[in-house]
Amino acid sequence: MIKMYDLAGADKNRRFSPYCWRIRMALAHKRLNVECMPWHFTEKDKIKFSGQERVPVLIDGSNTISDSWEIAKYLESAYPDRPSLKLDNGEVLFIKFWSETVLHPELLQMLVLDIHDNLSLEDQSYFRESREKMLGKTLEEVVANRQEQLPRIQKLLTPLRSTLSKQEYLSGETPGFSDYIVFGAFQWARCVSGFSILNADDIVYKWRDKMLNIYEGLALSAVGYRV
Amino acid sequence: MIKMYDLAGADKNRRFSPYCWRIRMALAHKRLNVECMPWHFTEKDKIKFSGQERVPVLIDGSNTISDSWEIAKYLESAYPDRPSLKLDNGEVLFIKFWSETVLHPELLQMLVLDIHDNLSLEDQSYFRESREKMLGKTLEEVVANRQEQLPRIQKLLTPLRSTLSKQEYLSGETPGFSDYIVFGAFQWARCVSGFSILNADDIVYKWRDKMLNIYEGLALSAVGYRV
Repeated sequence: MIKMYDLAGADKNRRFSPYCWRIRMALAHKRLNVECMPWHFTEKDKIKFSGQERVPVLIDGSNTISDSWEIAKYLESAYPDRPSLKLDNGEVLFIKFWSETVLHPELLQMLVLDIHDNLSLEDQSYFRESREKMLGKTLEEVVANRQEQLPRIQKLLTPLRSTLSKQEYLSGETPGFSDYIVFGAFQWARCVSGFSILNADDIVYKWRDKMLNIYEGLALSAVGYRV
Repeated sequence: MIKMYDLAGADKNRRFSPYCWRIRMALAHKRLNVECMPWHFTEKDKIKFSGQERVPVLIDGSNTISDSWEIAKYLESAYPDRPSLKLDNGEVLFIKFWSETVLHPELLQMLVLDIHDNLSLEDQSYFRESREKMLGKTLEEVVANRQEQLPRIQKLLTPLRSTLSKQEYLSGETPGFSDYIVFGAFQWARCVSGFSILNADDIVYKWRDKMLNIYEGLALSAVGYRV
């Protein structure tokens, strides 16, 4: 069976990496089973064989692939007869970079302390040190006024909201990897934080709800918060 | 022959609408000839037959279509044997809304006075009044510190820049409507203003250069500024 190293919290069933969630959803899309092995930030040694220090790392027989984009491409080429992730749509790459450079940083500013609080003790000190250095503030200072940041994130979601008001999924009438990329960010939030980012009357919330429920509620049943 | 009402300045050969440019490029993509008829903001009567007050308006035999997105969909369905605009990629709609709600407003703040200055006298008063009402400032105030806005637009182009560093076009290995949508915004800028937005060493500049040169330099040869 395919195996994947998956970022976990102190509770090893709390799996919250947005990059790992993309792949969990992509595997389900392709009807491929996977054994997800919990991995913690400070367990660099465990994945050293992959030649780098981040998850997801996918192991499929004799193949080891890291980086979520490379994994998605691998799945497309190794399982061409399974439902397509629609990676041939060039615009998916734009969605990827929009998610990673616009949406993720904005969410991180709201979630960073909740992420910390859900980590194992060893990971907590690593995480605090590296993130405080990156953000130039204590984690507590970063999230202090997150309520006031909500209008900014609502505005930033405008292209997503407008798209979903015209069609069922980002990828069109059926979901594709672009949906899993953006959903991964919201699932990241949901798995670590009870802070409510989306309003229930938002079409983005409704789309996220569909994503939570597909594949027999794979994402809905994950350890997380009911937001 | 297909005809299109196309926004024009005081110089009737200056055609600068980003929405019209999408369609000019899409028509060239489909190897369809078009007669572009100059139209001014205050000539609402001329396009009244289309049931609305904006260009582009496309006339193909007995069909009249307005709204650039509807026109693109029409071209795909009416000319299915011509090269595809790849509108089936659901993510194109996200690119459209990103362009219209993120990129256009930012560019408008830099270009609005230059647009004004290139309009016919009648259009100038209409344009000034409507845009000053919309922006809540005089046109001169809006553009006063546009040099200082450049870092903001550079940052905002990050997802586009990252995408184009990985593949030739937004749409993948060949251009599609998503490229024409975003290019339309830069062509809008280039047709009305000598203000330089992109640096020559920027991959976005290089992509724009390719777009200017395709279809026998259709966009390059348009009346505009060498920026």
